[in-house]
Amino acid sequence: MAPHPAVAEVRRAVREHLRRLGQGRALVACSGGADSLALAAATAFVAPRLGIAAGLVTVDHGLQPGSATQAQRVAAVGAELGLDPVEIVPVAVGTAGGPEAAARTARYAALDAVAAALDAQVLLGHTLDDQAETVLLGLGRGSGPRSIAGMRARQGRWSRPLLGVRRSTTAAACAALGLESWTDPHNADPAYQRVRLRTEVLPLLEEVLRGGVAEALARTAALLQDDLDAVDALADGFGMPQRCPDPTIACQSLDAGELAGTPRAIRTRLLRAWARSNGAGPLSAERTAALDALITDWHGQGPVDLPGGVRVIRASGKLVVSPSVFDQE
Amino acid sequence: MAPHPAVAEVRRAVREHLRRLGQGRALVACSGGADSLALAAATAFVAPRLGIAAGLVTVDHGLQPGSATQAQRVAAVGAELGLDPVEIVPVAVGTAGGPEAAARTARYAALDAVAAALDAQVLLGHTLDDQAETVLLGLGRGSGPRSIAGMRARQGRWSRPLLGVRRSTTAAACAALGLESWTDPHNADPAYQRVRLRTEVLPLLEEVLRGGVAEALARTAALLQDDLDAVDALADGFGMPQRCPDPTIACQSLDAGELAGTPRAIRTRLLRAWARSNGAGPLSAERTAALDALITDWHGQGPVDLPGGVRVIRASGKLVVSPSVFDQE
Repeated sequence: MAPHPAVAEVRRAVREHLRRLGQGRALVACSGGADSLALAAATAFVAPRLGIAAGLVTVDHGLQPGSATQAQRVAAVGAELGLDPVEIVPVAVGTAGGPEAAARTARYAALDAVAAALDAQVLLGHTLDDQAETVLLGLGRGSGPRSIAGMRARQGRWSRPLLGVRRSTTAAACAALGLESWTDPHNADPAYQRVRLRTEVLPLLEEVLRGGVAEALARTAALLQDDLDAVDALADGFGMPQRCPDPTIACQSLDAGELAGTPRAIRTRLLRAWARSNGAGPLSAERTAALDALITDWHGQGPVDLPGGVRVIRASGKLVVSPSVFDQE
Repeated sequence: MAPHPAVAEVRRAVREHLRRLGQGRALVACSGGADSLALAAATAFVAPRLGIAAGLVTVDHGLQPGSATQAQRVAAVGAELGLDPVEIVPVAVGTAGGPEAAARTARYAALDAVAAALDAQVLLGHTLDDQAETVLLGLGRGSGPRSIAGMRARQGRWSRPLLGVRRSTTAAACAALGLESWTDPHNADPAYQRVRLRTEVLPLLEEVLRGGVAEALARTAALLQDDLDAVDALADGFGMPQRCPDPTIACQSLDAGELAGTPRAIRTRLLRAWARSNGAGPLSAERTAALDALITDWHGQGPVDLPGGVRVIRASGKLVVSPSVFDQE
């Protein structure tokens, strides 16, 4: 009998992803929610056929009464699916950055430790809908293209096989497989920006732009990751090591004429890296533009002050960190 | 007496922009709305001080009763501001693509013709708010990063000095200068996606993400333009001329091993250009990925069919346009 279409779709996504991993071990991070439960079931089905050993890990945040029981329930499902090993990791959640961020920090640290011990890749259940919400959250930060490029399908130890799968599909897959999923009460709490994006902003955007918005956001994010990786690699190729032959000292001057010929995207990355190597803090887009104007729009303007008390001037065709600041050291 | 802060801000933006244009002639495209009226006033003030001759052109779309009178009113304001020449261009609006698109097509063609005759740069009144709306519209299209990079501050003959200025500022500048602006009734018609983005989606996003969204969208768009220009330039450097020594014939095969080493952003651009040179129509992200998989995820899969009836196979380590398709020609 052919599997339910939703089950088939999740399996296909997991198969595509795992095939690129090659041999090894994968560990599904499972909260018991529909996304990670569907991921666990698909991984249990697909991984053995690819020669990949697949286990499951669930984190007990200890934040709600009964969380230990819930973790045991998830572990039991994992074992029944044939995943091995199945691990329950209790964590102590701090308070830094608010409840959401603190829980995430504790969770990722615990997952990382377990995966490192098992030399495993961690499979996370983020879906296309999560990706769309992440892109919208990034838009609000406005810290540049990287902030709207969303989550990566693979980054070091972390894998996200379901970034192209809708949340409605993971829910349908669980239902078809008779897997009872757990709904995090935070998923409906409008105190969280992400919840309001999901329940208010995205539906309105879908209505106004006539559908397809979540898919469009996710697709754009994936293409953007590639493009930004290429620019970063290009900037690295132009980078500091070549310009500062002795890496133990900061490279105090940059040749303006030489930089004027590079594309702005590369030049601004170089300028930020150079400023950082001279002790400046992260530069805003506006400070970066002011620094760049010393190269591309030079008309005798004054020094540019950067966060961290670093002052840059242009003198004799070079950008130099102003001596007055060095004198104070 | 110091000018009103809004007037000063608009002038500063125009000065920054015109200074980079250098000598020449600028022509403000003015509808009589607050944005382009504030732009006209600032240009009339700033341009002569930079040795730039500045005129005004207003387009009479002939779509509403009294549009000719309205165009004459705008022209009179332009002359009073000291702009010269002041031109009224009547256009015939077609129907292709809907009323909004048809009016825009007619308008840009008319502006282009006038500017070409005068060898002038056209200054357009698009503001930061317009840019934010354009980015959101692009998100809905999902045709990749370029679709969310918004409008360019300068592209060929077209200049947008106010992309960093809020709409509220242009309105305040007009009020401070006693310039009575005209409000296009379409600006409040919820039949237009852009109007609903402005009046419903952006305010909700601002509320949920706690402000700064329009600025964030505009800033991200500007940075993205730079990054995408760099990737495009890089892809051009790897490009077709070198690979197809004889540009009069399509380059029918590509070496998979050679391409495997290039960053994915470059590789996919090359693949799209190659497919196009072989007669394929524009490729979706999904078709591009299928083509790319012949290089990066080769496991003996079958041919990849592209729009335009072009079929690509991998054979002996090369991507080739399938002979069966060539046979049909």
